[in-house]
Amino acid sequence: MIPHHDGSELYVSNPAPALGETVDVFVRVPARIRAGRIHLRWLSDGEPVFTSAVVDRTDSTGDVWWRAAMPVRNPVTPYRFLIRTTQGVRWLTGLGLTHYDVPDSTDFRLVTHPAPPAWARDAVVYQIFPDRFARSGAAIDRETPEWATPASWDTPARNGSTTVLYGGDLDGIARRLDHVAALGADTLYLTPFFPSRSAHRYDASSFDQVDPLLGGDAALTRLAEAVHGRGMRILGDLTTNHTGRAHSWFTEQPDLYYPNEFWLGHRELPKLNWGSAELRRRFVEIVRRFSHELDGWRIDVANMTGRRGADDWTYEVARLLRAAEPDGLLIAEHAHDATGDLDRNGWHGTMNYAGFTRPIWGWLRAEELPFDDFLGVPGEVPARDAAATTATMMAFQAQMSWRSWTTSWSILGSHDTARIRTVVGSAERQEIAAGLLMTLPGTPMIFAGDEIGVTGDNNDTARQPMPWDRPDSWDGATFDRYRELIALRRAHPALTRGGLRWVAGDADTLLFLRESTDETLLVLARRKMSEPLRITDLPAGTRWENLYGGAKSLYTEPDGATAIDVYGPAFQVWAAHS
Amino acid sequence: MIPHHDGSELYVSNPAPALGETVDVFVRVPARIRAGRIHLRWLSDGEPVFTSAVVDRTDSTGDVWWRAAMPVRNPVTPYRFLIRTTQGVRWLTGLGLTHYDVPDSTDFRLVTHPAPPAWARDAVVYQIFPDRFARSGAAIDRETPEWATPASWDTPARNGSTTVLYGGDLDGIARRLDHVAALGADTLYLTPFFPSRSAHRYDASSFDQVDPLLGGDAALTRLAEAVHGRGMRILGDLTTNHTGRAHSWFTEQPDLYYPNEFWLGHRELPKLNWGSAELRRRFVEIVRRFSHELDGWRIDVANMTGRRGADDWTYEVARLLRAAEPDGLLIAEHAHDATGDLDRNGWHGTMNYAGFTRPIWGWLRAEELPFDDFLGVPGEVPARDAAATTATMMAFQAQMSWRSWTTSWSILGSHDTARIRTVVGSAERQEIAAGLLMTLPGTPMIFAGDEIGVTGDNNDTARQPMPWDRPDSWDGATFDRYRELIALRRAHPALTRGGLRWVAGDADTLLFLRESTDETLLVLARRKMSEPLRITDLPAGTRWENLYGGAKSLYTEPDGATAIDVYGPAFQVWAAHS
Repeated sequence: MIPHHDGSELYVSNPAPALGETVDVFVRVPARIRAGRIHLRWLSDGEPVFTSAVVDRTDSTGDVWWRAAMPVRNPVTPYRFLIRTTQGVRWLTGLGLTHYDVPDSTDFRLVTHPAPPAWARDAVVYQIFPDRFARSGAAIDRETPEWATPASWDTPARNGSTTVLYGGDLDGIARRLDHVAALGADTLYLTPFFPSRSAHRYDASSFDQVDPLLGGDAALTRLAEAVHGRGMRILGDLTTNHTGRAHSWFTEQPDLYYPNEFWLGHRELPKLNWGSAELRRRFVEIVRRFSHELDGWRIDVANMTGRRGADDWTYEVARLLRAAEPDGLLIAEHAHDATGDLDRNGWHGTMNYAGFTRPIWGWLRAEELPFDDFLGVPGEVPARDAAATTATMMAFQAQMSWRSWTTSWSILGSHDTARIRTVVGSAERQEIAAGLLMTLPGTPMIFAGDEIGVTGDNNDTARQPMPWDRPDSWDGATFDRYRELIALRRAHPALTRGGLRWVAGDADTLLFLRESTDETLLVLARRKMSEPLRITDLPAGTRWENLYGGAKSLYTEPDGATAIDVYGPAFQVWAAHS
Repeated sequence: MIPHHDGSELYVSNPAPALGETVDVFVRVPARIRAGRIHLRWLSDGEPVFTSAVVDRTDSTGDVWWRAAMPVRNPVTPYRFLIRTTQGVRWLTGLGLTHYDVPDSTDFRLVTHPAPPAWARDAVVYQIFPDRFARSGAAIDRETPEWATPASWDTPARNGSTTVLYGGDLDGIARRLDHVAALGADTLYLTPFFPSRSAHRYDASSFDQVDPLLGGDAALTRLAEAVHGRGMRILGDLTTNHTGRAHSWFTEQPDLYYPNEFWLGHRELPKLNWGSAELRRRFVEIVRRFSHELDGWRIDVANMTGRRGADDWTYEVARLLRAAEPDGLLIAEHAHDATGDLDRNGWHGTMNYAGFTRPIWGWLRAEELPFDDFLGVPGEVPARDAAATTATMMAFQAQMSWRSWTTSWSILGSHDTARIRTVVGSAERQEIAAGLLMTLPGTPMIFAGDEIGVTGDNNDTARQPMPWDRPDSWDGATFDRYRELIALRRAHPALTRGGLRWVAGDADTLLFLRESTDETLLVLARRKMSEPLRITDLPAGTRWENLYGGAKSLYTEPDGATAIDVYGPAFQVWAAHS
C-alpha cells in the first residue's frame, strides 16, 4: 500500500463545499511507510499554495492519517500532496505516487458547482430501448409508419434493422416495472421517445410530443407516475447535436443548422448550430417542458454538441441545459474522453466507456471475439492484464473530480455495443463483470436484457426484443447474480460512498478495498483459474468475512500478509472485522 | 528505440496549418520493431476519427516511416497513433508508447492559431534586470528617490535589497550590447521599466512613461534603435495581475481593482480586476503604445492574471493582449504548470520552470544546497535520476503543442531564483546545464551574469550588479562555453527545428537525438564520473563526428550497438555521417 487520498468522505471533510469554505483533506499513510513530512498544495487563483499537513490520528491498523486545511478559493480547486519518505520526495495525485513532477491535470479536485441530485449517488440505472422492451395492448393495434418494416416480437433482430419496428411502447414499460424492481434497479433510462423515422429514434422529426407510436405524451405521463409511485426515477435521451432530416425545424428554420453538415456524414442527420440563440431557447423550453415527468437526461453525442470547426459552444450548451432544469441529472454521451468536458457546471457525469467499459472488456474478453472494433476504435478489444486495466481506469479517473467520476455511468454494454455476455463469452465471466460494475465507484447502468444473459455482437443484434414470453431463454442464474450484487451494493454504503484503494494482485486478478467510516470491504475478481494469492499489505490484524461469492473467511496477519485461497474464475467480496 | 512522432518538421508536413488544411503526419518505426498496422486517430469536432497509415518509405538506417493524412478540422486538433506490434496494441501519444488507454490530454496537437513571430524560433534570450545591469553616465547624476537606498555598483546585493537602488539604466544597457552580441544572444528581455517604488519595478506606479530613473521614454527609444540596428530584438515585462499601491489608477479609479485583494497578500500590490472593460482598454493601449520599440512582452504572474474566486478571465486577457499587437511575442510567467493556458490563441509560450528548470536542477544539483525550496515548492530541490528527469520533461511537454513548447523559454535561473552556478556547484556542471539549455527544444533564456559564473542563493543575492569593472571576478571559461554552445545552436538547425528522441542511458546520463531532414545530432550529458556507456539502439551503421566537448568519434554498428567511452562529468555533441 502506498499513501492514499481520494475524493470520498473518508478523506475530505466536505466533498461538496461552498465557494470560500475551508475543507479538511486527509492522507492515509500505511503503517510501514515513514513519511517525514507532508505538504498540501492547492491552487488559489492559479497560484500553488503550500501548507504543512499535521498528524491527525493513528488508526487501529497502524495507518497514520495526516490532515491539512484547504480554503476552496475557486469553483474548481485542484490539489495534491508533497510527501517526503525515506525514498525521496514524491507527489501524490490522482495518478498515485510519482517520483517525478506531473502537471495539474491529474490533481485531485474539489468542485463548488451545484451537486448532482442526491438520489444519483445511489442509483442503479436500467437502460430501455423503447421499441424493443415491451408492448402494451395498444401497441398491437397501431399502424406501421411508411418508413418502417414491422416485426413480430419473437423475430430476432438482425444486422441493418434500423427501420425494423417491433412496436414496444411506454405503457409496455409501465407493465414491466415489477421486473426492474425485482432486479433492484431504480432508475429507468429510456433511449429517445420523440417521433422519428427509425427504431432507435436518434433522428428526431419533432420535439413537440412523445412519439404516438410509443403512446404519446399521455403514456409518458402514465409511465412517469408509475415510476415515481414506486420511488423510482426516469431519464430521457436528448439529441442535441443533430435532428433527423425529417424534423420540421430543418425545413422551416434552416438557420438552426449548419448548412451541409451532418453527423459523421450521415445526410439524414443534419447538425444543429448552437451559435443560434433561437436554438438555445428551444432546447431550454424542451428540457423545462419535461421537468415534471423526467428526473434528467442522457445527452446524445455530447462530445460533438456545439463543436464544429472554429466553433466550440459545448460548455455553454452544458451550462444552459443544466440551468434549465437545476434539479435534473445530465449525463453526457462521450465514448473516448469526457474528462475535459466535466466539472464545468454542465454535465454531471459521462457514460464511462473510456474509463470503465473498455478496460473491463479488455481484461475479461473472450479469446475470440465475433466483432473487430470497440465503438469505432480499430484493433479489436485489446487484451489487457490487470495492471494495464487499473492503469487505464486511474488515468481517466485522475482527470475528473471524485463526484463526476462516481456520478458517471459504469457500463458493461449499451444499445451502441455488443452485449457483455458475448464479449466475455460465459456466465461465469459475466458475473465477474457484473461484480465489478456493482462494486467499483461509478453509477451502474445495465442495458435491459444483460441481466438475463442476452447476447449480440453489435448494436443491431444486441437490440433484441425482451423475451418476456420465452422464459426458457432466460439465464435465471445470471438474473440472480445481478439481483444479489445490486442488493449487496444497496446494503453496503461503502460501495457507493466509500473510497477506493487498489491492492496489487497478479495479471489475472483485480483486488481492491472500498472503505467508508463504517466499513471496509475487500473485493476480488479473478478472471481465470490461477494460483492462490499471497497478499502482503492489507490492513494488519483484520478478519474478513465473506459477503458474496461463498469463499471462506480470510485473516490478515499483524504484518499485513493474507492468504487468499480462491482459484478463480471468481468474484468475491469480504467485509473487515478488526 | 520505440516508434516515434513529435511535432517537428520531420514528422508533420506543415506544423502551422490553416483551418481545414490536410496535413501529413508520420510515425517512424525502428527497424527492429515489426508494426503490423498503424492507425492515426484525430479529433474532429470532438469525435475521434481513425484512418489507416501507410508505409511511406524505409530510410537508410532501416527505420520504416508510416504516413497518414489528417484534416485539421478545429483550431486545436489532438491526435495520436494506434500501433499493433507483436507485443500487442499500443497508443503513441506525447507520453510515448503506452500499453493502456490514456486520456486526450497527452495527445499530440496541431494548432491553427496564428504562429509566434518567425524570429522567436531561433532566439537566444538574454534577461536584464535594469537596475543591476549597467549604468550610463547620466545615471550617476540622478537623484535617489525617497523610497530607495542608494548603493555603489561594487557593493554586493544582500537579502532584503528590494529598495536598494544601484542605478542601472537603459542607456547603460545600450552601451553593453557588444557583450550580448559577443555571447551570441540576440533578444533582450528587460524586467519592468515602468516607474515604481522598488528595484525590481514589479510594483508599477504608472504605465504612462518609462521610469525617468532608467532614462525615460527617450532612453527606451534609443535602446530599441540600437538593438534593432544590430538585428536584435527587445522584450518588455508587463505586470497584468497587479500594480503598486502607489499607482495613480489605484487612487483615481479603484474600480479597476478588486477591493482588498492583493498579490499573495502583499498590501503594496493591489490586484487588478479584468472584469473591467476600462482596464482592458487601458492595457491594449499600453501594448500598442510600445509596439514600435518592443518585439513583445513577458507577462508577469500570467498564471493569476484575471483569476480570482469565481472569475476566470485569463484566456480572454491573453487573447486580448495578443490581438493588441499581433506581431509581438507573448511569454507567460507560470512556475508550476502553464499547459492549460497555452494553445488558446493567447500566450505563445511560458517560462518553462516546471518542464525544464526544475527537472534540470533536480538532476544537476549540488549535494548540499544553500536554500530550501524551489520557487516556493517546499522540500528542497528533489534529487532526481535521469529517468525521473526525462519523465518530468515529457509529462509537461506532452500537454502542449510542439510549437508552444519550442517557443517557451528554457531557463536555468532568473531574477526570481538562485543562480545556476550555485545550484549545480561547479563550472563543470554549469557547462552541462548550459549544454542542455542550448540543445534541448525550447528557447534558451540566460539571466545576465550566468555566463560569467555569477552566484547567488536566492532572488535577492542573485540580482548582483554586473561586475563590468572587475573582470578578474569573471569566469571567462564559462563565458567561452556559453558562447560556443550558442554558436553550436546557431550552426545546427536541428537544435532549433529538429525533433527529439530520448535514448536510454543510465541514472547519471541524459542522451538524446536532435534530428532534422538535413542532420542528426547525438547529445550526451553525464553529470558525474561513470562507466563508459554501451548503447544498443542508435541508428544502425552511423559514424558520429564530435561537434562539441572534444570526445572522439563514435561508430554505431549495423546492429545499433554503440560504445561511448566518455566517463563524465561531460557534455558532448556529435553529428551523424551515415
